Parts: sequence; C-alpha cells; structure tokens
Amino acid sequence: LIMNTAIQNTQLDKFFNPASVAVIGASNAPFNLGATICNCLKEYIGFPGQVVAINRKAEAVNGYPGYSSVAHIPHEVDMAVIITPAAVVPQFVKECGEKGIRNIVIESAGFSEQGSEGNELQKEIDRYADRYKIRLLGPNCLGVMDNVSRFCCFYGAYEGIMDALNKAGGISYVIQSGGVGVLIIESLMDDMQGINKMVSIGNKSDVDEADMIDYFNHDNTQVIAMYLENVAHGEKLMKVARRVKKPIMVFKAGRTEAGRVAAMSHTAGMANNDAVFDSACRQSGIIRLKSINEIYSLPKMLTEMPLLRGNRIAAFTNSGAFGSISADIMVDAGLKMPKLAQQTREKLGKLKGVFNRNNPVDIGPAPPQVYLDILEILLSAEEVDGLLLMSSIWRDFVIDVIKEVMKMCKRYDKPASIYAPNSIGRIIAVRKQFNIPLFDSMEEAVRALVVSHEQFKYLRKKEKLMGEKS
Amino acid sequence: LIMNTAIQNTQLDKFFNPASVAVIGASNAPFNLGATICNCLKEYIGFPGQVVAINRKAEAVNGYPGYSSVAHIPHEVDMAVIITPAAVVPQFVKECGEKGIRNIVIESAGFSEQGSEGNELQKEIDRYADRYKIRLLGPNCLGVMDNVSRFCCFYGAYEGIMDALNKAGGISYVIQSGGVGVLIIESLMDDMQGINKMVSIGNKSDVDEADMIDYFNHDNTQVIAMYLENVAHGEKLMKVARRVKKPIMVFKAGRTEAGRVAAMSHTAGMANNDAVFDSACRQSGIIRLKSINEIYSLPKMLTEMPLLRGNRIAAFTNSGAFGSISADIMVDAGLKMPKLAQQTREKLGKLKGVFNRNNPVDIGPAPPQVYLDILEILLSAEEVDGLLLMSSIWRDFVIDVIKEVMKMCKRYDKPASIYAPNSIGRIIAVRKQFNIPLFDSMEEAVRALVVSHEQFKYLRKKEKLMGEKS
Repeated sequence: LIMNTAIQNTQLDKFFNPASVAVIGASNAPFNLGATICNCLKEYIGFPGQVVAINRKAEAVNGYPGYSSVAHIPHEVDMAVIITPAAVVPQFVKECGEKGIRNIVIESAGFSEQGSEGNELQKEIDRYADRYKIRLLGPNCLGVMDNVSRFCCFYGAYEGIMDALNKAGGISYVIQSGGVGVLIIESLMDDMQGINKMVSIGNKSDVDEADMIDYFNHDNTQVIAMYLENVAHGEKLMKVARRVKKPIMVFKAGRTEAGRVAAMSHTAGMANNDAVFDSACRQSGIIRLKSINEIYSLPKMLTEMPLLRGNRIAAFTNSGAFGSISADIMVDAGLKMPKLAQQTREKLGKLKGVFNRNNPVDIGPAPPQVYLDILEILLSAEEVDGLLLMSSIWRDFVIDVIKEVMKMCKRYDKPASIYAPNSIGRIIAVRKQFNIPLFDSMEEAVRALVVSHEQFKYLRKKEKLMGEKS
Repeated sequence: LIMNTAIQNTQLDKFFNPASVAVIGASNAPFNLGATICNCLKEYIGFPGQVVAINRKAEAVNGYPGYSSVAHIPHEVDMAVIITPAAVVPQFVKECGEKGIRNIVIESAGFSEQGSEGNELQKEIDRYADRYKIRLLGPNCLGVMDNVSRFCCFYGAYEGIMDALNKAGGISYVIQSGGVGVLIIESLMDDMQGINKMVSIGNKSDVDEADMIDYFNHDNTQVIAMYLENVAHGEKLMKVARRVKKPIMVFKAGRTEAGRVAAMSHTAGMANNDAVFDSACRQSGIIRLKSINEIYSLPKMLTEMPLLRGNRIAAFTNSGAFGSISADIMVDAGLKMPKLAQQTREKLGKLKGVFNRNNPVDIGPAPPQVYLDILEILLSAEEVDGLLLMSSIWRDFVIDVIKEVMKMCKRYDKPASIYAPNSIGRIIAVRKQFNIPLFDSMEEAVRALVVSHEQFKYLRKKEKLMGEKS
C-alpha cells in the first residue's frame, strides 16, 4: 500500500508548494467559493506563482486569467483545486490528467458522504486518478495551508488567515473536517505555538492520514496531530506510525454508536470499532486525545519541554487548595506523587515562606528567588521526574519565574507542566505575550504530563524496534 | 445542631452588612495585612460605616482611628476582623465578647490546620465564642464579600476588587480556600454572571457550609456553590440541603488519599470517605461538581435557562464534525439523542441549507432566519427536552440568533446549552460583551445539560418530600 517514500513525498510536496495553480470552478458569480480561493491567493497571500480560473464563461477572476477548459491553459500547471458541483468533477479530473496535472485538491462535497450516487462519482474520480497517476486530496475537504511556504487554498478564507500564515510553528495537522480546522487555527492564535502545515483530507479517496504522517516525518514538523472521523486503512496507518519518532496525536470522533452515525453522514467512511482503533493506537505509538481541544492545547508540552521519563510528579503551588485538587487529578490520571526525600525536605526547610515541605509544596507570599530555589530543588531531586507548577500570577515576577523554569527544565531534562489559577482571559493574554506554555486548566496541565510520558514510552519502544531491525 | 433559622440568620446578617467594624491587628507596619483590609474599606469600597484599627501603638490606620484595646473603642461595634498572630487571637476574642461584639471573622492562620498546638488555640477561641454567644467565621479564612451591600473584608484585596463589587449577580459562594475565592472572582470577570456573596469559612470552628446554605436560602441568592476540603457535620449539611430548593453545587477536594493528605495540611478537618460524601450529596440533592472550573462556569446554566426536564437532547451545529464529537460526549454523559419525529424532519426538510435532518442537525452557510426556524422546530418538538447549540460565530448574526434562542427557551420552558467552536478568547469576549451563556468547551456545555437535569430531578424529589410533610 505504501509507495516509495521519496517519490511519493516529492509528488505530495506540490500540494504545499505549487508553482502554478488552476482553480476550477472559480467565477464572478455571487457567493462563488472558488473566487474566495483566488482572493486568498491574490489579496491575502500575494502568491508569487501563476494562477488561472476555469469557468464556463472563461472570465478572469480577481485579475487571474480565466479559461473555459483546462486544455486551454497555455502553460504548465502544478496543481488544480476543484470546487464545482460534484457531478462535473470527474470530467475535470480527466481534463487535468490529460493536461498533465498530477496534484488535485477536490474541495467539492457530494460524494461518498452522500450515499450511492455520490459513491459512483467518487469511483469515477478514482479511476481517472489511477489512469493519470494523479494524487488527490479530498473530495469534500478544505484543502491545504502551509505557514512556511505561505500557501493556502482553503475556500472561504477571510482576512484573519494572514495572521495564521504569519505565525509558523511546529505542529502539522491532518484533519477530516474544515470546521475543526478553523477551530484549530483560531485557537492557536490564542496560544504560543503556530502551525507548520494543515491538510484537510475529507473523504480521502486517495491521500490519507498515513500518507501525510509519512510526509510530515520528513519535513520540519515537530508534532503531528490529527482529527479523524474514520480510518479506512488501519494496517497502513499502523505501519507508518510505527516508523515515526515525532509525536503523533489523534482525536477520533465516532467513539459511540451515536457519534459514528453522525460522522458517517459527514465524511463517509466505514464505522470503526473503537476498541480496535484504541488498541491500534497503542500498538503503533499514536497518542489518543480525549478532547478535541487537546489537539491545539497539548502539542506545546511536546515542543517546549523535555519528555517526562517517569511518572513521579512534584506539585508546587502558591495556594494550598490547588495542591489538594491537583493531587486528586494526578492520582486519577495514573501519575504518582512521591514522598520527597529527607534531603529534599531539608533543602526546602532552609527556605523562608514554605508552608508545606511535603508534596505538593505550598508557599505563601514569597519573593521570586524563593520560587526559583524551590523549583530547582524539586527539579534536581532524584525522586522527581517532572513538575506540576501551579502558581497564580499575582505579581508579574511569576512570569519571569516561569521563563527561568523553562530553562531549568532543559538543564535537568525534566518537564514542568504549568498552570496559573487565574482567569482564562489572563492565562491567554500572558501565554501569548510572553510565549510560555501555560495550560487552560489543572486537568489539562495534568493531561500534558500524561501525554508527555506516553510519548516517552512510545519513543523508547520504537527506538528498540528500529534498533532490532537495523 | 441547627439554631432557629430566623435568629441565626439575623446574626449572620451582620457579617455582610455591619454598621461598624474593628480590624484587630491593623497597623502601619510594612506588609501588615490588617492595613490592606482598612485600605479596601476606605479606598476601594468607601465603606459608609465606622471602622477602627486595634494595634499595640493605638495608631490610626488609613485615617481610621486606632486603639490599643477593644475595650477602648468608644462606640458599639457590629463586627470584628482579627488578623493577628494566632497566639493572641483567643485573648482578642475574649475582649470582643466583653465589648458585646457578636460577629467575628478570624482571618489569622495557625490553628487546627497546624497540629496540636494550634488545635488548643482553636478550642480556646471556641470556649469564648460559646460564652459570649459569638458567631465566628474562620479561623484561617479570607472573610466575606457582598456585592449587593458592597462590603468586603478580604485581606490583600487589590484595586481589581472594585470591578467584582460592581458586578453583583446571583451566585453565592461558600469557600474553604482563599486561593479558590480569588480564582472564582477573577474568572467571573470573564463571564456573564456575577457574585451575590462570597464567604470564606476556613477551618470553620463555628459557621460552616450548612449555616451558609441556610442563610443563602433566605436571601436573594439564585445558585449556591461551594468549595469544600472537608465536612465536619455531614448530618447537619444533609438536613439543611434537603430543605433548600435553590441549586446547591459543591466541589470537594480530597477525593483520593493523596488529595486528602494535602487538604488536611491546608484547612485541617478530618478525612472524609469520598463514597460516603458522594452518597450524601445524592441523598440531599447537592450537585457534585467534577472540576473546580465548573464552580464558576456552570451556574449560568441555572440562572439563564429553564431546567432540563428530560434527558433527550437535539444537537444543532453549523459544522458537521461537532455534531459527531458532541454525540460521543452526550452518550458518555448519559444523555439521549432521540431520533427526530417524522413531523419534525418534514418541517426541517422545508428549510434551505439543512445538510442533515437527523439529530445532530447540521447546516451549511445559511441566513439567520434558517437558524432560528431550525432551533424553534427543535425546541417545540415533543421528542426533544433541550438543545445543544453549537454554532461557530462566523458572522455577527450568530450572536443575535443566540439572543433570540434565549427568549425561545423561556417560551418553550426548555434549555439550550450553548457552545461556539471558536477560540476561547473569542468565546470570552462575546459572552462578556453580549451577556450570553456561552460555555468554554463542548464537554462543559454537555455537563451543563447534565447538571440542569440533575437539579430538575432533585427539585422534584424535594418538592415531593416537602409536600408530604406539610
């Protein structure tokens, strides 16, 4: 099922970095979606390559020349974006094939997600794709966004997309829903991390999540995160995932019968047994997310902090209640709160303002150096694998303390998961302004520790497997 | 255990609306905490009553006259706030008793939460309180805040407290941690609801959560919400709660052994068996919260929306994925997603832009009237008890739609739980500006439905019990 990676990825490259694009279905009709793609390429991105519009009247769109047929385009085209009624899509795929276009994004809906008639159309597309060795994204998808090459062919993009494109980061997304894509883009604007690439795979008649994982394994992606509604080729996904050391996260809709029924009407695909999928993730080292919000909130733990090598966590707080609440959450999550060693307790005892030298460590109003001393004592303690740092930002110096702890974490090769018991508005503002990995809730901060340790264990297992093979 | 309610509550009134206050321990020493209370009363609140400071040097604080002893105060005093080292607190309680002060807030720490020595001090206080019929709040607490009478005796309050005091609302809080109190106050500034009263009960040597529930049952409180670390008088709590029809919510720390150990070092109290506590809540109609964040996020469901009378939910979304994701969450939460009746489906079929006439109902880009028509069809459907409304705010009209749905909900006596798959920053901004009950996540919106139905069932049970008795 897997093509030679190098060849496959060279062809997939064109989706992210085409020199020329044909937008099939773009016209000047009111509410035309193809026109929004032209508009995005021209106005928002200032795309440096060639763009043409294909429409019945051969009319220019947004200043890009228009042709009534793909065959009439007078130059080579790297990639076509099709956004026409479903019924005419197969014919356009054929025309693209004849023209030598080998990359097509089909954004139109109305295929296998809409019953037998759509299914037939999808099969017809597949036949042409096979015949002309075309790689297809979609149908029923939003297209691609690349914040490094600064390319985007999402339909309906508004001006805000520029902010997203200006904020390149390390996370690459594979999504099976445009709505989730928009939620991710908007949410990351409130966060510290940015997007590397985002691919919307829709009904994935050709390119699927496994292809994309393999692709992101060879580019500058740090974390791969996916939103899936179904998995058609489980074995292929597992085979690829096992070879990838970058963290792979997945949120899958349709865990329950009700969720599956809803998902099928959205992006087609067969119902998957959830237990089987869960087991496949564990076997192939894919982190399974518990909430869709985790798809944008958790990656920063993996990009900004060392992995959690054990499950023994020291909690630190400047308000006793949060120590107790977080202890409950940590126990539920399977983490351990070790007793601090005599030596550690003695070191803490020498500091002023420490209310509680047990784990969780709890302090009253204290100056920054006391915070730093405590956190370094805990990070350096042999009985501690990582920190849960919960300090309310009651003074600005707490922000400086957090920045310093980030450096300490690298030094000790142990992570800190950081939460501030402040309003979510304040958390967002501080996180964004100072570029620090603050989580939105205690639960999320604890989940980040769990996920970090899961990735550590997966990585060990994969390295061992790969070592045995070589 | 329970005093005559009317008499008890008249005495408790003084904590919220004293005509005169003595701040015992307020001085001009650097970092003096009593001085922060005087500052708050003078600068932030402009407290209209009399205030005096008690300190060794009899020095005036913030312009308030100072005396070296309670006995020297030349006028009557309604309430004393004690914030001195623990060792001298009993003596001051005695002096207050002799002076005729019957309401004392002890904010000082160093009592039963700190082992046997502190325990002895606390017992001494209790003896004086008994002798002089004093009602005590604390020790080891933050005091009270009342947004209606505009009174606050929290120590360490900063200027921002004025915003909170200017935002009176329907939620009254009983908290056993100052840190949680601050988190609530700050978080509600990002939300639509405001606080009615907040009482920090600390080690609760006298006034406890049961007394406060009884008190809030007779004032203008709409929802009672509590953060507890321990329950000393379970029977008393249950007896009071059974009589109260207002929603009572509780988040309790110390579910696990690790959490209990941490809680005990914070506000003393015995360890409670969590299963016993859980059962007590169910028997007496107390809603048990699952996350500390719910203490500020969920009350708006109960103040802004009718109760959920059954568990059959129709979901509506303008992005298919969220229908599927929410279906999973609802099933997990024990809610039902009924099949829509033929009649309902026919009505939906007459509207343009409806992608999916099943539950969840899923639409594409559509004008406001289509949104409103769909939502009214669903709310009026016999097979539907309530809505999960998940529409991204992609255009401003969605905000108007939500406002209109709030009115519809009252008309049909069915609730809608509302989430927007937008960034949290946008959710907060819209919620605050337009005063609409938007939840932060799908999970939270579903929890709000569960809690609303729980309260409906509790209320029915209580009404039946009370009916039988009368």
